[in-house]
Amino acid sequence: MVSSSESTSHELATRSSYPLHVVDEWWRAANYLTVGQIYLKTNPLLTAVLAPEHIKPRLLGHWGTSPALNLIYAHLNRIIVQREANVLYVAGPGHGGPAMVANAWLDGTYSELFPNVSQDAEGMAELFRQFSFPGGIPSHASPETPGSIHEGGELGYSLVHAYGAALDNPSLTVACVIGDGEAETGTLAASWHLNKFLNPQTDGVVLPILNLNGYKIANPAVLARIPEDELLALFRGYGYSPRIVSGGFDGEDPMAVHDALAAVLEQAFDDIQSIKRRARSGRSVGRPAWPMIILRTPKGWTGPRFVDGVPVEGTWRAHQVPLAEVRENPEHLALLEAWMHSYSPRELFDREGRPTPTLESIRPRGAKRMSAIPASNGGLLLRDLALPPIENRQVDVSARRGATSEATRVLGHWLADVVKANPDNFRIFGPDETASNRLDGVYEVTAKQWQGSFEPTDEHLDPEGKVIEILSENLVQGLLEGYLLSGRHGLMNSYEAFIHVVDSMFNQHAKWLESSAHVPWRRPVASFTYLLSSHVWRQDHNGFSHQDPGFLNHVVSKSAKVVRVYLPSDANSLLVTAEHCLATRDYVNVIVAGKQPAPTFLSLEEARIHGARGIGIWDWAGTERDGEDVHVVLAAAGDVPTLEAMAAVHLLRQNIPGLRVRFVNVVDLMRLQDPLEHPHGMPNNDFDAIFTTSKPVIFAFHGYPALVHQLAYRRTNHDNIHVRGFKEKGTTTTPFDMLMLNDLDRYRLAMDVIRHVPGLGERYAGLAQHFDDERARHRAFAYEHGIDSPDVLGWGWLDARPGETEEPTG
Amino acid sequence: MVSSSESTSHELATRSSYPLHVVDEWWRAANYLTVGQIYLKTNPLLTAVLAPEHIKPRLLGHWGTSPALNLIYAHLNRIIVQREANVLYVAGPGHGGPAMVANAWLDGTYSELFPNVSQDAEGMAELFRQFSFPGGIPSHASPETPGSIHEGGELGYSLVHAYGAALDNPSLTVACVIGDGEAETGTLAASWHLNKFLNPQTDGVVLPILNLNGYKIANPAVLARIPEDELLALFRGYGYSPRIVSGGFDGEDPMAVHDALAAVLEQAFDDIQSIKRRARSGRSVGRPAWPMIILRTPKGWTGPRFVDGVPVEGTWRAHQVPLAEVRENPEHLALLEAWMHSYSPRELFDREGRPTPTLESIRPRGAKRMSAIPASNGGLLLRDLALPPIENRQVDVSARRGATSEATRVLGHWLADVVKANPDNFRIFGPDETASNRLDGVYEVTAKQWQGSFEPTDEHLDPEGKVIEILSENLVQGLLEGYLLSGRHGLMNSYEAFIHVVDSMFNQHAKWLESSAHVPWRRPVASFTYLLSSHVWRQDHNGFSHQDPGFLNHVVSKSAKVVRVYLPSDANSLLVTAEHCLATRDYVNVIVAGKQPAPTFLSLEEARIHGARGIGIWDWAGTERDGEDVHVVLAAAGDVPTLEAMAAVHLLRQNIPGLRVRFVNVVDLMRLQDPLEHPHGMPNNDFDAIFTTSKPVIFAFHGYPALVHQLAYRRTNHDNIHVRGFKEKGTTTTPFDMLMLNDLDRYRLAMDVIRHVPGLGERYAGLAQHFDDERARHRAFAYEHGIDSPDVLGWGWLDARPGETEEPTG
Ligand SMILES: Cc1ncc(C[n+]2csc(CCOP(=O)(O)OP(=O)(O)O)c2C)c(N)n1
Ligand SMILES: Cc1ncc(C[n+]2csc(CCOP(=O)(O)OP(=O)(O)O)c2C)c(N)n1
Ligand SMILES: [Mg+2]
Ligand SMILES: [Mg+2]
Repeated sequence: MVSSSESTSHELATRSSYPLHVVDEWWRAANYLTVGQIYLKTNPLLTAVLAPEHIKPRLLGHWGTSPALNLIYAHLNRIIVQREANVLYVAGPGHGGPAMVANAWLDGTYSELFPNVSQDAEGMAELFRQFSFPGGIPSHASPETPGSIHEGGELGYSLVHAYGAALDNPSLTVACVIGDGEAETGTLAASWHLNKFLNPQTDGVVLPILNLNGYKIANPAVLARIPEDELLALFRGYGYSPRIVSGGFDGEDPMAVHDALAAVLEQAFDDIQSIKRRARSGRSVGRPAWPMIILRTPKGWTGPRFVDGVPVEGTWRAHQVPLAEVRENPEHLALLEAWMHSYSPRELFDREGRPTPTLESIRPRGAKRMSAIPASNGGLLLRDLALPPIENRQVDVSARRGATSEATRVLGHWLADVVKANPDNFRIFGPDETASNRLDGVYEVTAKQWQGSFEPTDEHLDPEGKVIEILSENLVQGLLEGYLLSGRHGLMNSYEAFIHVVDSMFNQHAKWLESSAHVPWRRPVASFTYLLSSHVWRQDHNGFSHQDPGFLNHVVSKSAKVVRVYLPSDANSLLVTAEHCLATRDYVNVIVAGKQPAPTFLSLEEARIHGARGIGIWDWAGTERDGEDVHVVLAAAGDVPTLEAMAAVHLLRQNIPGLRVRFVNVVDLMRLQDPLEHPHGMPNNDFDAIFTTSKPVIFAFHGYPALVHQLAYRRTNHDNIHVRGFKEKGTTTTPFDMLMLNDLDRYRLAMDVIRHVPGLGERYAGLAQHFDDERARHRAFAYEHGIDSPDVLGWGWLDARPGETEEPTG
Repeated sequence: MVSSSESTSHELATRSSYPLHVVDEWWRAANYLTVGQIYLKTNPLLTAVLAPEHIKPRLLGHWGTSPALNLIYAHLNRIIVQREANVLYVAGPGHGGPAMVANAWLDGTYSELFPNVSQDAEGMAELFRQFSFPGGIPSHASPETPGSIHEGGELGYSLVHAYGAALDNPSLTVACVIGDGEAETGTLAASWHLNKFLNPQTDGVVLPILNLNGYKIANPAVLARIPEDELLALFRGYGYSPRIVSGGFDGEDPMAVHDALAAVLEQAFDDIQSIKRRARSGRSVGRPAWPMIILRTPKGWTGPRFVDGVPVEGTWRAHQVPLAEVRENPEHLALLEAWMHSYSPRELFDREGRPTPTLESIRPRGAKRMSAIPASNGGLLLRDLALPPIENRQVDVSARRGATSEATRVLGHWLADVVKANPDNFRIFGPDETASNRLDGVYEVTAKQWQGSFEPTDEHLDPEGKVIEILSENLVQGLLEGYLLSGRHGLMNSYEAFIHVVDSMFNQHAKWLESSAHVPWRRPVASFTYLLSSHVWRQDHNGFSHQDPGFLNHVVSKSAKVVRVYLPSDANSLLVTAEHCLATRDYVNVIVAGKQPAPTFLSLEEARIHGARGIGIWDWAGTERDGEDVHVVLAAAGDVPTLEAMAAVHLLRQNIPGLRVRFVNVVDLMRLQDPLEHPHGMPNNDFDAIFTTSKPVIFAFHGYPALVHQLAYRRTNHDNIHVRGFKEKGTTTTPFDMLMLNDLDRYRLAMDVIRHVPGLGERYAGLAQHFDDERARHRAFAYEHGIDSPDVLGWGWLDARPGETEEPTG
């Protein structure tokens, strides 16, 4: 990429004079290149009379949104050159992919990154051919699109991505184009309020541009069909200073729109500058009313106005491919030719197909180009996260194995260290649950960033801070995505159940990462790490709606290259896991960990070794002896299941002398999967060694039992694996009753062992019945007293005594 | 339930005089009962001096939100009595469950439905004891809560549920309380615009009441910390007429708030009445500005103001249990006692613990009670859907098996018949995709309902219509939930990939249905039916972000009592499936069906028999002979996989004479699962008969292959089942290239047969290589021409020739 020093002299030269007719030329060029991508296979410059054989056999792409995307790009170029601004362009309607590609080609970036798509007629032909073509490029603003951090296929996330990218980027302006259809989605509708968080001094700026082209796929857009006073009230109500630019209807000369848009943009950037200046000088009082722009132009503007007798420009019919039968219908062909000629390509490209010297000279240079701004390829900017020693925060188990700790609280203190060591590129996001999830140790070193008004009773709220909390999992997720994709680090925390709110956003981010890996010029970014707490086994107080471990199932269906799932068994194991995850790149890490007081089974040293292995035998817990066959494998994944499985071993030790139990703990869930399916998958012989090829395996699992079967079905001993986990039995009750309802309690696990180890069933029928009675006794206790019985609460590994009080939250 | 005629005389009596001090009494009584539920185990009327042993050992529940919920309930009672209004109460902060229960008990409804919780001291003791207690009732406004259609655990859906319930309910007013935290969620933020759809003449009314109590769990709420002019502008911008009631701070007398709230509510209901009157008389011009109320009162109002020296009332600390150590800390105990006495229980309940005659006489009667209104127990109102004969819309395959049809288009015409036959209790919802999913046949009989402004170019838009489209899967989902739970029927359509946007809402609805089944007085409601089209195999034009079949995985993790999944293979099969689903109760049905031209393999008669069976052998497609072992089973689930598997059989017939292939088609996916796990699960011997116990099974599956393994892992022949499906290889390319990328194409399936049938591998190595070459040839063709080769496009079952043109959309 061209260095930014090269750019300065040029920009100074064009600073004062950047006439609007050049903006119009750029716009026409970009529109031409957009239409070319949708329709043309060859004859890119229309040097020959347009004929059916020049046309692609399959017409794909979205024209309707493109002219506005191009218009805004052209005008922002002018602003960038005039003001040496750093602008990141987020195209909400990512289906306008060809528009973004067109501009990147005009910028020169495209040919730099894809040398086969040169900036000449041949390159233009390839540009057209490859679009939405097998083996070519996708139709949306995908990772393959220079300048994009936003695919825009699943609508709704543009504005939250923009805000995420702006955080801690004080010199960046993120121009975010939002479709009026996209604006109807939940996430987008909630995103407007993110101006209550952005700090004018330490963060960048988001300039939302609502593209009121009037239509979605087949319907008018709501915001396009309300009176203008409501529209303006709405955006004032959101706290913005809205400005409307409207025009281009009924054949109005685009120059009028250019005039208006240029003026509004200049005003907006002036206002931004003065807000920033005031903020820097500390004279800023309260939250500024940032500008936002409402651009009302016809959908598919400059496209065919009528086709087959019905209006197209300015209606929903312009959404995709306005002329559908160009190869078969000579009238359509003629319309297309006239349409493309209407841009006067000869004024825009020279004989070799290169953009004219005017276009070439007037554009931003190097890293100022929106298609080449480093924030759009965050890996370029990524600095390694400084990771303070977790040793400082470990739980000491030297006195006794099983020392009580609250795993996430321990983590919170280490996260405070991380925040301190990385003051400008690490953030924590949560949907109003960071304290509830007991990560509030971070407030010892930072605050929750907030630009709303303050009250004397407020705590840990500050205009600047590294934690952002808003009650929307969608916003939390989107902010972190934007923050990571623009080259920083972070973590999201959430209740386990409600993380499903962002299932689809997780999908799209995982797909982005998966696709990015195939784009050579995209540099690795920091992984997206979820910390899920207040999990299924400890939402006993909130009930069924809060009990759902299914995100794990959801996650494992995505590309194995991208997803990692961890179920640390205790606080030290969580520290090791978090330290590992925060150092990774290009993954989605999911960590599930409890917040309630619980035993710490492993020393930090043990946790490190165990964590690196991802799965292992805890010989100190089991009763096996080297060189002898075990009778049964008791395996556990997850903190509560580990505790129950340990308690089950405890029961078995006390009651079945001579039983050789192997105790296995799984931290890294993907170890269970076939190594052909997942890079963490354990080789078959190792798996067979641990789980045996013929002995019963009783598996205590944090989530839905079927997930273990899904992962392990190819393993030799799979038929002998009996999994206990959540079976959708939930309500408000005690923690131990929840376990019993789902047959994951210690007694049931011990009974499973008796049932499945050959010979035990008959000989220990009495013991099994006793365990069943114990379940009844514990249930009766809970039903009578409303809490679990003292022997459950007071259980500890052999000598330890964990599980003191508990304060449910949320 | 008491009949509504009983009520009239009483109401007339109290119409004119319903003094506000009685409202205050009701409010205090409800607050008292709320606090009692959170804290007390015994001593409900505080007849004894409060002692630690009266207190529950575990204090659960959410106090903070409750006083406002109670306040609104009390005032709405007055409105109901004065105006004979029909009001459904939706409590957005469902965590205020005890408040809703308290009011239902005061209403008398609770004791009618749960006779063990009588309306006396004993019943009150049980009311308190059972709350959030093992074996008792959940903490949220769950199905166990009379009057609720909204659990409110996962925040964000109150307003959309309210709008869904109001549709086609012209005499209903839905009062919807929205938490200021909840208002930050995506779905809630988008829901305000639903006033652009509600028809003032034919639909009911939604009265949103934003409860600005200032706080969430641990943070201020955004809307509580913006200036009042922004707040008002925002709601005017949303198109409402907002009114603020504010008070109760710093010890202000509640009577001032009662005065203000009563006046505002009266005004609101006056305005509603006059809007409705104007609408009925046809004099309504355009969309009315419906009233909405902003109620600004302290969080945890009337609770302890300070605890342990820190402010609690009016801060986030009031969110849950304000006094945490009542059993241990005498000061807390004293505070609790003073708090409960502050409501003067002796003025509210007589010695027997019954509400005073004033409270009893003043409340709404029978079905007018918000806790007993039939719309909150929709099954009471449910009328069977009239199902017109699908025969009228069937695709005729008598001439040739494989006649081309677009499955969803065929369905759309039948849905038009359904709309016509059920003009007031059936609706179709879609996120701007109903036409794209080719259900636009419905527009022959109805329109898209719309209250925005109109343009001359609009089509199928009308102030009244049975289709609602808005670009938010969340809103679409929530509207249908509200519509169904209040006793009607409907269907949601969506692109398959983006249905993940509502994963969490599906969860919550499935949990609601699952829990409702255990509540004897809840009557069955119509099932929620998803029609997912534009599916993974035909989003080749839109690319990776649009390709995701994972909703099936998500759905099957929920209770088997509730979920049903269908993959009809063609148009006739889709008709049969849809007819079946729309007649069911209390399920979530997921139907995945294509919209592109495709062969119709089954006659309607065959489709009926096959559909009833859910899985079956297509003997006309396979090459097996009665009484002889088959060599291989080729199974398919989903339309595109069925087509490919048929084409594979075709190849095998032509090239491997004597090979006995059994062809199996699966419509009802849950047939694969163990009958112990799912009621549709096939008995093992039947499964063994179809899939054999030892022969290779090549399974062409619509979704992720792991799902088939997850469902079938217990089956005898599981080790021989080889599944092909989506393996997360997606991009913009041709349909057949998509299949090849994921190894689900006919050639790969045929190669799988050669590989897995013993003996074929060596003898047909040449054929396998030829098939591999064919793949290369097809890919080369696609890469060169941008479309699939004619022999793929033109393939037809033996003599048929389906698969004509295609127009991608979306
Ligand atoms: C979440 C989601 N739902 C549905 C779609 C299908 N879809 C693609 S484009 C479109 C309309 C977009 O309208 P708008 O945002 O106004 O974009 P523009 O008019 O600029 O094309 C829809 C509904 C989608 N892409 N994402
Ligand atoms: C989607 C979702 N995310 C997070 C939570 C956790 N949660 C429970 S209550 C609450 C705060 C609710 O605040 P508000 O809506 O203002 O209710 P109120 O103040 O009336 O209690 C939160 C974040 C939730 N229930 N749902
Ligand atoms: Mg639009
Ligand atoms: Mg609140």
